[in-house]
Amino acid sequence: MAIDRAPPQFYALFVHKLAIGVLGASGYAGRELCELVARHPSARLAFASANERVGASARFGGTEHTFVAAEDARLGDAALVFSALPHGASAQWVSAAHAAGAKVVDLSADLRPGSSAACVPYGLTEHARELVRDAEIVANPGCYPTVTLLALLPLIARGLVAPGATITVNAASGVTGAGFSPRRELMFAEVAEDFRPYAIGNTHRHLAEMRAVLAELGCDADLIFTPHLLPVARGILATITVPVAEPIEDVLAPWREHYAGEPFIEVSAEIPALRDVVHRNVVRITATVAAGVRTPTIIVVAAIDNLVKGAAGQAVQNANLLLGLDETMGLPA
Amino acid sequence: MAIDRAPPQFYALFVHKLAIGVLGASGYAGRELCELVARHPSARLAFASANERVGASARFGGTEHTFVAAEDARLGDAALVFSALPHGASAQWVSAAHAAGAKVVDLSADLRPGSSAACVPYGLTEHARELVRDAEIVANPGCYPTVTLLALLPLIARGLVAPGATITVNAASGVTGAGFSPRRELMFAEVAEDFRPYAIGNTHRHLAEMRAVLAELGCDADLIFTPHLLPVARGILATITVPVAEPIEDVLAPWREHYAGEPFIEVSAEIPALRDVVHRNVVRITATVAAGVRTPTIIVVAAIDNLVKGAAGQAVQNANLLLGLDETMGLPA
Amino acid sequence: MAIDRAPPQFYALFVHKLAIGVLGASGYAGRELCELVARHPSARLAFASANERVGASARFGGTEHTFVAAEDARLGDAALVFSALPHGASAQWVSAAHAAGAKVVDLSADLRPGSSAACVPYGLTEHARELVRDAEIVANPGCYPTVTLLALLPLIARGLVAPGATITVNAASGVTGAGFSPRRELMFAEVAEDFRPYAIGNTHRHLAEMRAVLAELGCDADLIFTPHLLPVARGILATITVPVAEPIEDVLAPWREHYAGEPFIEVSAEIPALRDVVHRNVVRITATVAAGVRTPTIIVVAAIDNLVKGAAGQAVQNANLLLGLDETMGLPA
Amino acid sequence: MAIDRAPPQFYALFVHKLAIGVLGASGYAGRELCELVARHPSARLAFASANERVGASARFGGTEHTFVAAEDARLGDAALVFSALPHGASAQWVSAAHAAGAKVVDLSADLRPGSSAACVPYGLTEHARELVRDAEIVANPGCYPTVTLLALLPLIARGLVAPGATITVNAASGVTGAGFSPRRELMFAEVAEDFRPYAIGNTHRHLAEMRAVLAELGCDADLIFTPHLLPVARGILATITVPVAEPIEDVLAPWREHYAGEPFIEVSAEIPALRDVVHRNVVRITATVAAGVRTPTIIVVAAIDNLVKGAAGQAVQNANLLLGLDETMGLPA
Repeated sequence: MAIDRAPPQFYALFVHKLAIGVLGASGYAGRELCELVARHPSARLAFASANERVGASARFGGTEHTFVAAEDARLGDAALVFSALPHGASAQWVSAAHAAGAKVVDLSADLRPGSSAACVPYGLTEHARELVRDAEIVANPGCYPTVTLLALLPLIARGLVAPGATITVNAASGVTGAGFSPRRELMFAEVAEDFRPYAIGNTHRHLAEMRAVLAELGCDADLIFTPHLLPVARGILATITVPVAEPIEDVLAPWREHYAGEPFIEVSAEIPALRDVVHRNVVRITATVAAGVRTPTIIVVAAIDNLVKGAAGQAVQNANLLLGLDETMGLPA
Repeated sequence: MAIDRAPPQFYALFVHKLAIGVLGASGYAGRELCELVARHPSARLAFASANERVGASARFGGTEHTFVAAEDARLGDAALVFSALPHGASAQWVSAAHAAGAKVVDLSADLRPGSSAACVPYGLTEHARELVRDAEIVANPGCYPTVTLLALLPLIARGLVAPGATITVNAASGVTGAGFSPRRELMFAEVAEDFRPYAIGNTHRHLAEMRAVLAELGCDADLIFTPHLLPVARGILATITVPVAEPIEDVLAPWREHYAGEPFIEVSAEIPALRDVVHRNVVRITATVAAGVRTPTIIVVAAIDNLVKGAAGQAVQNANLLLGLDETMGLPA
Repeated sequence: MAIDRAPPQFYALFVHKLAIGVLGASGYAGRELCELVARHPSARLAFASANERVGASARFGGTEHTFVAAEDARLGDAALVFSALPHGASAQWVSAAHAAGAKVVDLSADLRPGSSAACVPYGLTEHARELVRDAEIVANPGCYPTVTLLALLPLIARGLVAPGATITVNAASGVTGAGFSPRRELMFAEVAEDFRPYAIGNTHRHLAEMRAVLAELGCDADLIFTPHLLPVARGILATITVPVAEPIEDVLAPWREHYAGEPFIEVSAEIPALRDVVHRNVVRITATVAAGVRTPTIIVVAAIDNLVKGAAGQAVQNANLLLGLDETMGLPA
Repeated sequence: MAIDRAPPQFYALFVHKLAIGVLGASGYAGRELCELVARHPSARLAFASANERVGASARFGGTEHTFVAAEDARLGDAALVFSALPHGASAQWVSAAHAAGAKVVDLSADLRPGSSAACVPYGLTEHARELVRDAEIVANPGCYPTVTLLALLPLIARGLVAPGATITVNAASGVTGAGFSPRRELMFAEVAEDFRPYAIGNTHRHLAEMRAVLAELGCDADLIFTPHLLPVARGILATITVPVAEPIEDVLAPWREHYAGEPFIEVSAEIPALRDVVHRNVVRITATVAAGVRTPTIIVVAAIDNLVKGAAGQAVQNANLLLGLDETMGLPA
């Protein structure tokens, strides 16, 4: 009976905690990362950099942490460094951290497929698990590509997408996807009771990343991607229309087979909603056959938390692999 | 100078006001209708029926009105009757009001194209203005069909939709579109911070209405329609992907030409948002060419207030035509 | 019958429109003012200044207007100028506009009671109507003082507040009350699903204004004022606890008497809510006796739209008086 | 190093889990309870009753559970039973569960102070810890009394409230406080962008509970309590004005001393906000001196999650004591 009373901290005493650093800790994704690291059973937050908030402090995992300048972060002390620095500013810090001996997960777009510097594994974990496990640096996918590609992979892998088809992706994201810097169009009185698309006409910068992965997989489909801004804080939901080569009898089978045993992928006949996935490192997926059309077409709906599975959570999932830990460790499923 | 001080009521003294009745006045669309009628410069609210609220009262146009039972409504006294009764219950009251001598605008689906009883003009005003003007009964379009069809008509009319194409319509609606009856899934704590599709797989009942109109216009395109529930009170935004027969140079030209001079249609290069259209009887439309795809494709975005242009406002627009009044009268543009 | 068809614009042809200017037109109150002026039956928007948006344009009253620099505004051409400039920056422009021959309504705090420069009538219209009518410059009240003072005046005027009492004012405001400048704490993801007080301990700058008016009326009550930030765009609701000298039998009578015939004050036994007042130039008030306490105490609840009755609407109400127009002209009741 | 990899489930194998039942599991508080029980390291969810959803299932703690009828719940198998049944219906089930041998935490008002049947300890845990530890049945406090009383206790215990004073409590709650049954006034389109008080004039049923505790402590202050409905899902914030017998130099000292070492009470100079407390079993409190008034007055602000510290969380806290477990077990701090 005595063991009933022992708090989790008791066991923690015996656990060696790995030093983990976070660069760019003051944005939404950076803070989410710090929180996950601070609560991770096998990690401790060694440093958190935030150049515009140096000296300020914040609570992560119930403990006060003081932000340092990136220049002052002791990169070499960390077993692994996450970079949540802005696109363009991240690549050099990834190199610096790696040169200092740390493994690195880069949440920026700098090293992702479609970028000029793409040369490290693309950490869409369920797709590239073995590559990630052997890597030293991983490019963490963007939020929209995560939900879109995880939704499409089973169809692509099975050659089910109709040749030359156009795949239509309509996605809607909560405002944390637009960053933590104050901008008028993100103010409460501007966003509440509103809804609007942006980057229409296939101009969103995440398209290159998605197309590169499709091309790599030999899928020649065109992609039309239209993001929308939702009056919610968190979450992305994508509604995807895919012309298929031939009718599929058991419409969920491709996902059920492809993702069998995956701890963070939930395939279900129920329609996903944001509230099913927020604050969790999961993607929820359903698929259905479009009735009453001549071209056999599948409608896939997938949802994630843009800050968790779409950013910090997937980054920790990749970090777990890089560090030889259990992939699910410290992640809210 | 004296005329400066004369309040609008002054002129109203000289204006003959037509008696207008509303059946089914307690739902969101019914109340919006009562308000528009009560503020209409040439109309007065002769009766408002609400069977579950008989004897209760509500303010419309700043004046207290008492709800009557439909049975007690003096249909014959009205120049025109709006029916905002539920689908299935409306058709018989439309007949009764017409038999009593009133013109009728029916907001239910009972008489719309695609229904078995469709035999009256379909009041998509900008499309069927002349038919409406000569009618005695008009079937007012549903909210999703209004925004979708007004967005598509210029392409269809010009034969620009690629033959055999699949048109993908993703639409998102505020919760007033789901009605005024208390349901758990519409409660604040269930809807806030959420977003989800419903009726996926082309199962929404509005599809019949949209397809019937497309067919009537000789458009053989397939339609895939996926509605979503937004955490906002009002508004519908539709993002529509249309494969076109050939590239269009001036992408807005079809809409600008088709809707030239229309008082309630705003074509613009700006991307529409819900807040541009709520509480207004307008549809805002933009279109853009999808970049980086082989099949020439246009993305059309259109937004309306589901209760105004998508219901009560368009109903008043039709009523104005039926009554020989100026089409814009009493409508917030 | 012909007159049925004449649109409101018909009558407008005969109406001389007064030139009205707005300084500081880009904030929430400034834009609301421009809209009210542009739709006012006896006014036209002569200029709208917005120093950080010079050359940009916006639609007011359905017409495009181009923002000018304050320096370029032709103050002398205007019959009346509204200043919605920031506190501190406004007073000098009020003087300049007045020197140029215009009447002025100043929406800033610069000339309000409690400020060092207070020397013009305080435009709490229902309280100071005659003073305003004869003035050339009026200091328009702040949003919190408007709702608080209108709620308290009938008790104060009747000497009903207990001598030496402490009046407790808890008020909650939508985020437009915090201004249009982007600030992190006003972003959607920070405000949604939150609620918090601010300036606790009687430190809000509006207190001086409220106390000055109380003192002027000979009311010696102490005031404790705690504002809160609501996750809504518009509206202020104040819940006010007032110890009274003796029990009041007909608790609504003081308000009903005091405000008899007032077009913009709604006294009712129904509890006011924000949605009763938004987009309207009204204050809704109820009062009730606190049960089960030894000190006779009245709870007064009042609600306004902070941008209309709490700012731009009341400013137009005052302008109407200054210009010898009907006080209600151009105002949404 | 091996121990690094052992998942938490590993240790759970050695832990005896106590059987816990939940009556009335389908409301917001009931579901929150089931979730806390299912995730509790020393408990397992033995049954969850929900009379209107018998046979339906829901996921708690990641596992599917099927609702039973209360009549079919095996009360005698449970070490402890929570009753989240409606007021009036709960007391008889509390007796039945107790008669069957279970300890009971009753979340209804049936046995609370101020009710006719009050005869069991009132589980305001920080106030009555020793009584609860020795009890078999505990009446769990209401949400408003929890936040109000925890905010006031330090002042009352120190005799700091001015004799004969009136304490003014303005509290605002998220809509989950109003229950899970569909009601029109709780629908999204009715609540969003709104704010309103209710039960004004000291008529809320929670007042009896608060007054009874004050009386028991010898505090003769009058209480004026005005609740408000917020457009948020969760959380209560109370702003409380307390006339004090004499000025307090270190205004936070009473709370810091009174609650020293309390794991679930956070006293801070920072102003509490709902987002600091949601999904956590804590109350956050600050206090400040009202400036510029003759009667020395303290403003206390306190916030809780109405479903956690205000209901299910505090219920588990009490259950931990009743069962001899660590008080903090299974609770999110």
